[in-house]
Amino acid sequence: MPRLKPNDSFCSVAKAIDLLGERWMLLLIREVAFGTRRFDDFIANLGIARNVLTARLNRLVEAGVLEQAPLRSDGRRMGYRFTPMGEELLPMLIGFMQWGDRWLQTPESIPVRVLERATGKLLPRVSVRNAAGEVLGLRDVDWEPGPGASHPQVAALVAAYEAQRTRAPRPVPAAPAPATPRNKTARSIRSKASPP
Amino acid sequence: MPRLKPNDSFCSVAKAIDLLGERWMLLLIREVAFGTRRFDDFIANLGIARNVLTARLNRLVEAGVLEQAPLRSDGRRMGYRFTPMGEELLPMLIGFMQWGDRWLQTPESIPVRVLERATGKLLPRVSVRNAAGEVLGLRDVDWEPGPGASHPQVAALVAAYEAQRTRAPRPVPAAPAPATPRNKTARSIRSKASPP
Repeated sequence: MPRLKPNDSFCSVAKAIDLLGERWMLLLIREVAFGTRRFDDFIANLGIARNVLTARLNRLVEAGVLEQAPLRSDGRRMGYRFTPMGEELLPMLIGFMQWGDRWLQTPESIPVRVLERATGKLLPRVSVRNAAGEVLGLRDVDWEPGPGASHPQVAALVAAYEAQRTRAPRPVPAAPAPATPRNKTARSIRSKASPP
Repeated sequence: MPRLKPNDSFCSVAKAIDLLGERWMLLLIREVAFGTRRFDDFIANLGIARNVLTARLNRLVEAGVLEQAPLRSDGRRMGYRFTPMGEELLPMLIGFMQWGDRWLQTPESIPVRVLERATGKLLPRVSVRNAAGEVLGLRDVDWEPGPGASHPQVAALVAAYEAQRTRAPRPVPAAPAPATPRNKTARSIRSKASPP
């Protein structure tokens, strides 16, 4: 039995999970962000088996997230570094780090704090923002079908979201999260085409 | 053999992966963000087995990411919704969606676009920003030991990052990513205590 229905192979989140969902992957991204470049340093820092590390690094290179490059001042040895595709994972990496700091640590157990290099100030939370830079909550964002929604299997899932909203009684609203002040007045992600 | 060295149990990213790294987890978060509330709707939309879904939902409730609440206008049936802890996953969910749109789709295959409800405008990329709202790249961020870094195992990993930087020849800098204009002049995440 397939683990996912075919329509999920079209979802960008599912595609990202297919690539990065295995637990070592985000830890490897973390290591590269913290400056680890050499094969043996990944092993030392993560305690990962050599054959597993080889497979994971090859997968990240093949997917275009990492690339090999000569280590500076030693042209024969190669190290791993981000491609632009890989560097664009930084918001999700720091977002999970901050989220883990808030929800999975105690104030005394936070191992590292991330800050802006130029000022030394702690970074604000990675947030969803609008073009004006305002922080948006779940009820402030909406979605619309993209070009790929014309595919029958994507259209089926979009229709399912519509149907369950029309059919199912809605749960009472969740308590507003303190971090998303606008979410008292707006609504959750849903199609523009059918307001409730 | 343990899959991770003990010091990784202290990392907020590792803790987040422990909770959310299994592939169904972020898809369940996606479903809740898109308004799925009922057990049978998760099954229909994801094609997930009932026993697997039960276990995953229980884990998310136990961890405090989701909570059960009566479905509106039908007090007997229960649905799932985000807690504030769960709602704070929105930046990472949308970040992965946007990243997948950019790197794992073609322009024609993007299934949905996320936008601001109030304006109908597409959301800018979820980014790391400073307090002034400026977008930061990898070389603009830095880190410092947090309160938990006094633990010997955390201190060992911090020391390893320092040692590999001092010992290893550094790779040549990656080509600057177009999305992070400041990264030409700043440097990658690393301890403030030992500039290269």
